Amino acid sequence: MTAGDRREHDLLGDRDVPADAYWGVHTLRAVENFPITGTAISGYPHLIDALAAVKEAAAGANAELGLLAPEKAEAIVTACREIREGRLHDQFVVDVIQGGAGTSSNMNANEVIANRALELLGHDKGDYTHLHPNEHVNLSQSTNDVYPTAVKVATIIAVRELLDAMTVLREAFAAKADEFRDILKMGRTQLQDAVPMTLGQEFSAYAVMLEEDQSRLAEAALLVHEINLGATAIGTGLNAPTGYAEAARRHLQDITGLPLITAANLVEATQDCGAFVHLSGVLKRIAVKLSKSCNDLRLLSSGPRAGLAEINLPPVQAGSSIMPGKVNPVIPEVVNQVAFEVIGNDVTITMAAEAGQLQLNAFEPIILHSLSESITHLAAACRTLAQRCVTGITANTEALRASVQNSIGLVTALNPHIGYTAATAIAQEALATGRGVAELVLEHGLLPEDRLTALLRPEEIAGTTA
Amino acid sequence: MTAGDRREHDLLGDRDVPADAYWGVHTLRAVENFPITGTAISGYPHLIDALAAVKEAAAGANAELGLLAPEKAEAIVTACREIREGRLHDQFVVDVIQGGAGTSSNMNANEVIANRALELLGHDKGDYTHLHPNEHVNLSQSTNDVYPTAVKVATIIAVRELLDAMTVLREAFAAKADEFRDILKMGRTQLQDAVPMTLGQEFSAYAVMLEEDQSRLAEAALLVHEINLGATAIGTGLNAPTGYAEAARRHLQDITGLPLITAANLVEATQDCGAFVHLSGVLKRIAVKLSKSCNDLRLLSSGPRAGLAEINLPPVQAGSSIMPGKVNPVIPEVVNQVAFEVIGNDVTITMAAEAGQLQLNAFEPIILHSLSESITHLAAACRTLAQRCVTGITANTEALRASVQNSIGLVTALNPHIGYTAATAIAQEALATGRGVAELVLEHGLLPEDRLTALLRPEEIAGTTA
Amino acid sequence: MTAGDRREHDLLGDRDVPADAYWGVHTLRAVENFPITGTAISGYPHLIDALAAVKEAAAGANAELGLLAPEKAEAIVTACREIREGRLHDQFVVDVIQGGAGTSSNMNANEVIANRALELLGHDKGDYTHLHPNEHVNLSQSTNDVYPTAVKVATIIAVRELLDAMTVLREAFAAKADEFRDILKMGRTQLQDAVPMTLGQEFSAYAVMLEEDQSRLAEAALLVHEINLGATAIGTGLNAPTGYAEAARRHLQDITGLPLITAANLVEATQDCGAFVHLSGVLKRIAVKLSKSCNDLRLLSSGPRAGLAEINLPPVQAGSSIMPGKVNPVIPEVVNQVAFEVIGNDVTITMAAEAGQLQLNAFEPIILHSLSESITHLAAACRTLAQRCVTGITANTEALRASVQNSIGLVTALNPHIGYTAATAIAQEALATGRGVAELVLEHGLLPEDRLTALLRPEEIAGTTA
Amino acid sequence: MTAGDRREHDLLGDRDVPADAYWGVHTLRAVENFPITGTAISGYPHLIDALAAVKEAAAGANAELGLLAPEKAEAIVTACREIREGRLHDQFVVDVIQGGAGTSSNMNANEVIANRALELLGHDKGDYTHLHPNEHVNLSQSTNDVYPTAVKVATIIAVRELLDAMTVLREAFAAKADEFRDILKMGRTQLQDAVPMTLGQEFSAYAVMLEEDQSRLAEAALLVHEINLGATAIGTGLNAPTGYAEAARRHLQDITGLPLITAANLVEATQDCGAFVHLSGVLKRIAVKLSKSCNDLRLLSSGPRAGLAEINLPPVQAGSSIMPGKVNPVIPEVVNQVAFEVIGNDVTITMAAEAGQLQLNAFEPIILHSLSESITHLAAACRTLAQRCVTGITANTEALRASVQNSIGLVTALNPHIGYTAATAIAQEALATGRGVAELVLEHGLLPEDRLTALLRPEEIAGTTA
Repeated sequence: MTAGDRREHDLLGDRDVPADAYWGVHTLRAVENFPITGTAISGYPHLIDALAAVKEAAAGANAELGLLAPEKAEAIVTACREIREGRLHDQFVVDVIQGGAGTSSNMNANEVIANRALELLGHDKGDYTHLHPNEHVNLSQSTNDVYPTAVKVATIIAVRELLDAMTVLREAFAAKADEFRDILKMGRTQLQDAVPMTLGQEFSAYAVMLEEDQSRLAEAALLVHEINLGATAIGTGLNAPTGYAEAARRHLQDITGLPLITAANLVEATQDCGAFVHLSGVLKRIAVKLSKSCNDLRLLSSGPRAGLAEINLPPVQAGSSIMPGKVNPVIPEVVNQVAFEVIGNDVTITMAAEAGQLQLNAFEPIILHSLSESITHLAAACRTLAQRCVTGITANTEALRASVQNSIGLVTALNPHIGYTAATAIAQEALATGRGVAELVLEHGLLPEDRLTALLRPEEIAGTTA
Repeated sequence: MTAGDRREHDLLGDRDVPADAYWGVHTLRAVENFPITGTAISGYPHLIDALAAVKEAAAGANAELGLLAPEKAEAIVTACREIREGRLHDQFVVDVIQGGAGTSSNMNANEVIANRALELLGHDKGDYTHLHPNEHVNLSQSTNDVYPTAVKVATIIAVRELLDAMTVLREAFAAKADEFRDILKMGRTQLQDAVPMTLGQEFSAYAVMLEEDQSRLAEAALLVHEINLGATAIGTGLNAPTGYAEAARRHLQDITGLPLITAANLVEATQDCGAFVHLSGVLKRIAVKLSKSCNDLRLLSSGPRAGLAEINLPPVQAGSSIMPGKVNPVIPEVVNQVAFEVIGNDVTITMAAEAGQLQLNAFEPIILHSLSESITHLAAACRTLAQRCVTGITANTEALRASVQNSIGLVTALNPHIGYTAATAIAQEALATGRGVAELVLEHGLLPEDRLTALLRPEEIAGTTA
Repeated sequence: MTAGDRREHDLLGDRDVPADAYWGVHTLRAVENFPITGTAISGYPHLIDALAAVKEAAAGANAELGLLAPEKAEAIVTACREIREGRLHDQFVVDVIQGGAGTSSNMNANEVIANRALELLGHDKGDYTHLHPNEHVNLSQSTNDVYPTAVKVATIIAVRELLDAMTVLREAFAAKADEFRDILKMGRTQLQDAVPMTLGQEFSAYAVMLEEDQSRLAEAALLVHEINLGATAIGTGLNAPTGYAEAARRHLQDITGLPLITAANLVEATQDCGAFVHLSGVLKRIAVKLSKSCNDLRLLSSGPRAGLAEINLPPVQAGSSIMPGKVNPVIPEVVNQVAFEVIGNDVTITMAAEAGQLQLNAFEPIILHSLSESITHLAAACRTLAQRCVTGITANTEALRASVQNSIGLVTALNPHIGYTAATAIAQEALATGRGVAELVLEHGLLPEDRLTALLRPEEIAGTTA
Repeated sequence: MTAGDRREHDLLGDRDVPADAYWGVHTLRAVENFPITGTAISGYPHLIDALAAVKEAAAGANAELGLLAPEKAEAIVTACREIREGRLHDQFVVDVIQGGAGTSSNMNANEVIANRALELLGHDKGDYTHLHPNEHVNLSQSTNDVYPTAVKVATIIAVRELLDAMTVLREAFAAKADEFRDILKMGRTQLQDAVPMTLGQEFSAYAVMLEEDQSRLAEAALLVHEINLGATAIGTGLNAPTGYAEAARRHLQDITGLPLITAANLVEATQDCGAFVHLSGVLKRIAVKLSKSCNDLRLLSSGPRAGLAEINLPPVQAGSSIMPGKVNPVIPEVVNQVAFEVIGNDVTITMAAEAGQLQLNAFEPIILHSLSESITHLAAACRTLAQRCVTGITANTEALRASVQNSIGLVTALNPHIGYTAATAIAQEALATGRGVAELVLEHGLLPEDRLTALLRPEEIAGTTA
């Protein structure tokens, strides 16, 4: 043992850790065992906070049940609160992709909290006879209930931030829907000119989609409020005394302010990743629609001269290192890419969930990793899209109106009056000759002019005067 | 035109169709255009019935609003009812994978219904001057509201069948949970021996998982009750008169008995596939857990001599063409494969939904195809698993109990009494020497025998006496 | 036993099968066990032929090695040849999605061939004392070498058909590339106007993509030529005598005309699905690019008036049940959907391959099912796209040329002559004022007119005069 | 402008950047536009090096063709070499997920190189009149050829590291195959006891799988050697003079030592992501098999007492925070998770590739991001698995041999001698009574003892004496 180290022991033997490290031998082993991404779990601050919250709740419950001496409990609680205030996060050093069903994350938390508590009690770090990571910090607990519970608490917080970001984007779309409510344009189906509508209707659809997605996301987040704290190793609650599960839940609810529920069947809850799969499925749904909306924005703003050029996205950077003056739809593009990532993450989460065996799913760390990425990147994408793109969109109003007047699709409105067959003939003649629908209808004497004019009023057709 | 044919016309010109065909020129074009799978949409009877229901509802609404002459409406309604009774399904001949956003399926329905209605009215098939596929059967409609609405109605019916099949499987698992409630066994985490539990707890978890999945599926199915009938081409309701949307919805609700809702924003509803993506995500969740359960069943029944051999699946066929007497877990295996299919279909549906552009998603046919496969195959898988496997499972009770008594994991129960560190030493010695936990604890004088015996009662540890 | 039945026996007991059925008790059990899709393996004629080819090869090898009496071998060989001529396919009745690693398909083949051989030898069907499905037809074999080998042979044939279909499409694109080689147009990056090119270059890219994909597909198909015939149950070759593997391979090569190779390590080859995963990955690559090409075709043909309207796809059916005269890009749309299906199937195949355990992958039936769908649907999609769309595409030449002359992107060509900074200023002014690049360059005195004219020649910029 | 800043200009106006920053206004915009992951591209050192290599090659080619003054070229080359030595990497600050098809990464490189070159030439940073990021560093280039080329060079280097890591793992498996070559065990198919083999054969299969995967990976990497440098914006080579493409390729080949090829059709090459999709498909194949191998290792080492317990993985950390002495297969578990990540990334890459439009794929940044993660994580997983798990695996030789002697599967070897039907009866009796196959065969007088003994020699059956 060199100076500046302390010696710790586990079932594999002795190892030296830096004397000033709050983590201990179990964390050291894990760091050596999982050199995968180079990113430590400290990169997920919500998870660190949630682990501390769970440990604080457990200590509270243990003290209440007389299992843990008050001074030990107090030291643990203080250490956990410090962590939740943002301190010691740099001591959470195990890799985000790790084997062991989260055991290393839990052990890392146990060790950091124990050593900080030892300090608070006036002992040296590593002097575990006074307060032990497993026997006291982890008392009445197993990784298999602590880790999923912490992941759920962290996820709920992250989802709330995503819901906020979605609101920002939804409101940006809704504001544009209002601003554009009188701008007539051609609607399109299958990329072919269809019938008139307003640009406001188009943007309104994006706002409504997001609103529905928010409802689904809020529903899915509810499922994540069901925790298995008190289940211990496999759900039978071994080593957690009667009353512990409910006490721990109550403490955790008080600490986090979240309405948490203990699962009715803890054996099931300990092995089941259904809530995560479900949540990821909803994130994927959000990604699909965000991506679709961004595809539309890119298409509608294509040009400036050889594209649809219906709307203009605000320029946010030079678009090309070679083409002067080119401005590209870079904000929708980055959102598309986040969407593709979320959809891929959903497959990762699906496979990890499917691979669970018997009483536990060992692959929750990758589920946490993928889920966390999906949620935080989606939130960043929504805010960026709102603030750097949607808010600044303008419309080419005159060109849009002209495209309606010039359209063949207007003939659809005549269907009930001249019949589908006659209307088809008019449409074909218009296409072949480049002439207008109205003049052809008049020329063929299909309708009198005043009636035709009334029927072809675009506002009427767009249904906005109803 | 050869004898036995009749001539029809569309915007591309004249074509002959067999005189006895109820479908017409639009269907003929589609059959020629989409020679992809060789499977016609008649393979989805729920869809055919649903198309007929929508057409019947539209005719009812049109008649009610005075747009359609009563005798025409009556003929259309009669034709639709015949289809819903199972007749004329063989006339739905367009391929399940088709371009055109479902237009060909809608046209096929329009033509079959028109020609049957013409017959009922005493006219020849193809004599569309009396009753026209587009101008009368399709009156006030567009593919873009008819097709998604029909797909939704068909999906709701199929989901109900899946829910029923899941109930059969859930009850089979629950019955076994009850039957096995006193059978002690070792629980496992990460495939390593953990702590005792009962086989009943293990099977109970499968039942509870299914119950939760049923709740999620029922929720997702609710979303599919929101329809866009009356939206016509792009959601602006062009050519559908005031009052039509609500009248059509009411008729469709009466016909199907389903509590349908018209979407608040029809432009959004016409382009959005969110409900299908969501439903597919829930089907994937079900698939993940079914697959996990089947993985467990195959693992627990591994053997007969060199495996875990905890349970026996009922033999349902000879397992091998070369290994005499071998019996394989073929039923769980087929369920696994259905699960993999459902998970792949979810990716297909996701991509199809993402690819929608502007006012419409042109790719709903593949969404219908994939969704329909997922639902019906899952339902078949659930019933098969229940009836040909779960119901006949037996347990190797004595071997299971012996494995508990012989286990090292029992030491976990001593944690609160001798501490994690001492317990670890006992576990390591047991593993190294092959000896039992109890004798080592006594030998080391860690606990008195009577107390040890009380602590190591497996029923106690499994938490089933609590 | 009713009249018209015969009684057969397996390890589960006696069962009656229809007297005229060529399949027997093992097939009967499988039909009852796997009521999943309703589609029998007869739907994959290449697989049936390949099973017959493998059985014929095995009989040949067994006869050659003196294990099978010549008259028995001859009867088996004759039965197999009849099947390969298309007879008895309707006797292959087990479901395409089945448990048991293909055992039921193999047993179905053994029984049909045995009963047909019995007939040929003058015996009754079911009189297995004279010729037995397992002891003679399956001699020296196991499902675990027969089934993957047959799947591979069937796959090779199907891939050849796909390669042919891709050639048809590639040639269609290449012909258009040639036809359009002088048509100038604006190239686009990120949907924004970029710099000039020719429509021929655009179509040439599609042809080149397909050519590269064909090379990759041919490479991947080579891997599938490696078979494990002779491996029997787990690759140790138990019950297959020395010399059998090579003799069977040689016979199978002669029968099929395919250059087959026996895997060097049969234990590995028997459990490994790598070649299928690889092939599916290449099919996915093809799907991705086909889909991208179809997205482009749909975009370039958008309009007719409010879209890019650069090219015209040939109308193949009426596009809308409500909008008269509307023609939609239904052929590219159906290809997109096949692509989404193939991409989803790749996930299914991936999961099935990953789920293999120890000496065998039990999930090859779903791999076959998904691969077969992907290959045959892609082939249909390629042919359809070529014949019903690409061949008939026309260009709007004048509008395309005008868009080049009118473009701002022309300024890129001036970069080396006036600098990126000055060119950016010109581009911005052009965009703001709606004026042309050339006039602004002259107005600012940045280049003399003759030099400018030379630099802005579109043919020059498109690089087609080089 | 505050002290310590310098002012820069782009088409959006003026912005101040820190005076000591090597990056400039374009980078600043991008950092503000893409606040997505918080991870800068400096996290991909291979990409930074590759960008520098491409810029150096371009400068060399430009100088050679007389387009760039020698002193400017020299300064650029020196700056690039410094970067490739690891300096200035912290100046590459744009986010890994970014819109704009890589423009921001290219602009970041242009600016850092320009400013470092300005310093070398004795000018102030930002004094672009002497050497300009776009006009000199980016001369004859576009993001659309520079970025994909750099991504390819970076990928080749990363793939080589993966191949090395796979070799380490393959050799570890091969060494175990050799060590275990005489250890008899039961082979299993569908998790049911099959026929005997050796543990060496089992491990040999893992080594062979990896070897095949390495061949496929090396093939796929070849495709990535095809670059489009010289294509500029859309493949027409606008602004790159005759001879530039070949000169730049030659310089890049000299700098990197890689045998690079210029694509024959640059328009196609500029829009096509096929090589990346292909490579990702091969990575997925590797992931599938690594995951399968790890599933096997976890299964074979299950226990210690209630599992298969055939092999022992070396303990690398305590397995449980609650269960003393428990050791879990954490290394295979982390590899499984990397595999799930790679499979998810493949879907992301697939979607990004499919979303390319017309002359460019705007989504290459997410392709790079996902591909880079997949490659580096797989390499880490292979090394970790080899060094922390496979190398230390031991076998429970006696138990394995006993399981063979005790097995029913031995009866398969008697098939050719007593027939499948009789063998099935023996197997059933053995299973029902718990007795041995040999004694039953003798009792039924099916074979004389000496012959039976010879036939049932496990070494014979395992095919290892052949």
